[in-house]
Amino acid sequence: MFEYTLEKQDGEARAGVFSTPHGDIKTPVFMPVGTQATVKAMTADQVKDAAAQIILANTYHLYLRPGHELIREAGGLHKFMNWNGPILTDSGGFQVFSLSKLRDISEEGAVFRSHLDGSKHLFTPENVVEIQEALGSDIMMVLDECTPYPADFEYTKNSMEMTHRWAQRARDMKERDDQALFGIVQGGMYPELRKASAQAIAGMDFEGNAIGGLSVGEPKHMMYEMLEAAVPRLPQTKPRYLMGVGSMDALVEGVARGVDMFDCVLQTRVARNGTALTRTGKLVVRNQEYARDFRPIEEDCDCYACKNHTRAYIRHLVKTNEILGSVLLSIHNVRTTIRLMEEIRQNILEGTFAAFRKEFDAAYEE
Amino acid sequence: MFEYTLEKQDGEARAGVFSTPHGDIKTPVFMPVGTQATVKAMTADQVKDAAAQIILANTYHLYLRPGHELIREAGGLHKFMNWNGPILTDSGGFQVFSLSKLRDISEEGAVFRSHLDGSKHLFTPENVVEIQEALGSDIMMVLDECTPYPADFEYTKNSMEMTHRWAQRARDMKERDDQALFGIVQGGMYPELRKASAQAIAGMDFEGNAIGGLSVGEPKHMMYEMLEAAVPRLPQTKPRYLMGVGSMDALVEGVARGVDMFDCVLQTRVARNGTALTRTGKLVVRNQEYARDFRPIEEDCDCYACKNHTRAYIRHLVKTNEILGSVLLSIHNVRTTIRLMEEIRQNILEGTFAAFRKEFDAAYEE
Repeated sequence: MFEYTLEKQDGEARAGVFSTPHGDIKTPVFMPVGTQATVKAMTADQVKDAAAQIILANTYHLYLRPGHELIREAGGLHKFMNWNGPILTDSGGFQVFSLSKLRDISEEGAVFRSHLDGSKHLFTPENVVEIQEALGSDIMMVLDECTPYPADFEYTKNSMEMTHRWAQRARDMKERDDQALFGIVQGGMYPELRKASAQAIAGMDFEGNAIGGLSVGEPKHMMYEMLEAAVPRLPQTKPRYLMGVGSMDALVEGVARGVDMFDCVLQTRVARNGTALTRTGKLVVRNQEYARDFRPIEEDCDCYACKNHTRAYIRHLVKTNEILGSVLLSIHNVRTTIRLMEEIRQNILEGTFAAFRKEFDAAYEE
Repeated sequence: MFEYTLEKQDGEARAGVFSTPHGDIKTPVFMPVGTQATVKAMTADQVKDAAAQIILANTYHLYLRPGHELIREAGGLHKFMNWNGPILTDSGGFQVFSLSKLRDISEEGAVFRSHLDGSKHLFTPENVVEIQEALGSDIMMVLDECTPYPADFEYTKNSMEMTHRWAQRARDMKERDDQALFGIVQGGMYPELRKASAQAIAGMDFEGNAIGGLSVGEPKHMMYEMLEAAVPRLPQTKPRYLMGVGSMDALVEGVARGVDMFDCVLQTRVARNGTALTRTGKLVVRNQEYARDFRPIEEDCDCYACKNHTRAYIRHLVKTNEILGSVLLSIHNVRTTIRLMEEIRQNILEGTFAAFRKEFDAAYEE
């Protein structure tokens, strides 16, 4: 279980398969985010129809509501939400830093106040493993400190070193062998720290390795530079996961630097705001120019929205605040992203990824 | 086209078939409401999966947004919203009275201000037929005045008589023979006016006849009394449609009084508020008591929500304001209502409707 098989390498880009108790994952892969045990606005069947192989859920949110013990009672997260494919849960670390009002970080862990009711909670490297064991996800993440951007070298280094110690404590805590645990590389925007962190995390022999603390406000070229520092120092034999990154161009560039797994809330978030993602950038469906546009969002897209509905109709739904507008755009955005990953994978297998990347870049407008 | 075939009468209850250009409708039938060209929170496929035979859309809303001319350009409402089954559009009369701020009713028609931007508009018996011709619905409704409740006899009588004159004007206006036009019986809460109205409307030879102005705040027994006055005076050879009524008990009681068609926003409205309709009343899923209830909403329900999800999960979605909560409850509420109609029809065909009604009443709690 949790074996990564490299099928083909094309430059740094990799096509592989990662096996989990709930099925094999063909990589590179995009994981739709189901923060509160639902990929926002989509049914489990619609997520499946989009050819999602694995979804992500958030430990922080599920711990607060409905509570991990309730999910344990339900038979675990798969059963609770009726998703039979693999699930990855994050550690809650990122949400503690981005959502909770007050927090107090020490060697022990992170004390934080719920963004819902202000109640006080403690996440430690140990209890977030326990919580994720209750959730029963296929892939668990270690608790880390997501270093803010910008941060000075000293702060970043100290934070990174604590993240390493937390990672080891999580590793020591983990018991179930039907759940993988992934370590997380930090190191801010300092290439030498990213290198050191990758080496340290690689040495702990997790089932997979993630790169965290990116896409936190830095320019994209900086994110790519950090990937170039970290990824080559992570084991070839394990999957590499770039956390919280999922714009179309960053997916292509991440794969080009050896990343295998991605997740992002962008797809469903912009959908609820009336924006469709496309191969060449985006289409703000709510704009007046689409009022009488009776074409699908993307002519060649095979999603339910594009096969059945026009831009004009979806714009009408968005303008009238109809839930179906969010539903259709979420379906499209998730599917078009997964379709991109499928094409990327095919090109890697055929050894044509460099040409594909060039063509994609030429057409893409941010 | 637009033939009503009576298959079986059981007491006053009727099982029949009404043919339309977009397919036959087995009656009695419940029509989910798609106010703005979408049954709220449901995809067209989900509406189809609920075994909906016909849906209703609102002329008032579509006239204002996106505009009937845009829908005409799209190829009509069926194509615009990608619903290939029959569609009934109302005349907008009810919304003029319930939604628009200012209105000025005269023999000519109703001047009203849009609830969206305050702009001034005029609905006449003639132009609402034209608007519905642009929409291309299978069944159009005449413009009527929905008499408020309570209203005195004089007002009600005058209003009813104008509604009759408007009905005749609409009848004279109608041109397309691929669209049916239904008249509407008014008469407030006065049985003698309901009788007179039914006779007048019946005499105009519409393809079907509706009873309007009920479920406007009056006690249910009064609504039933009005049905008993009106329905027997409507032709046996045409479908009878009770507008805006769709609670489970009122469906059974309406059928028992000879009604064939119903519509209601209740199903999807209460869904968005966290309430499930059931055969015995309702289940307020958002309540604490369902937090650890791992049963489906209704054990014997065949809807997507009941086949795949628990009360505990749906409650979690409702409590966390997830769109999927509204989606699943809408699916359930529409399907469970249609399932009731299917059983009602089966019982009529088998001549067991009286027993069915008795059993239903015994179990039902408002």
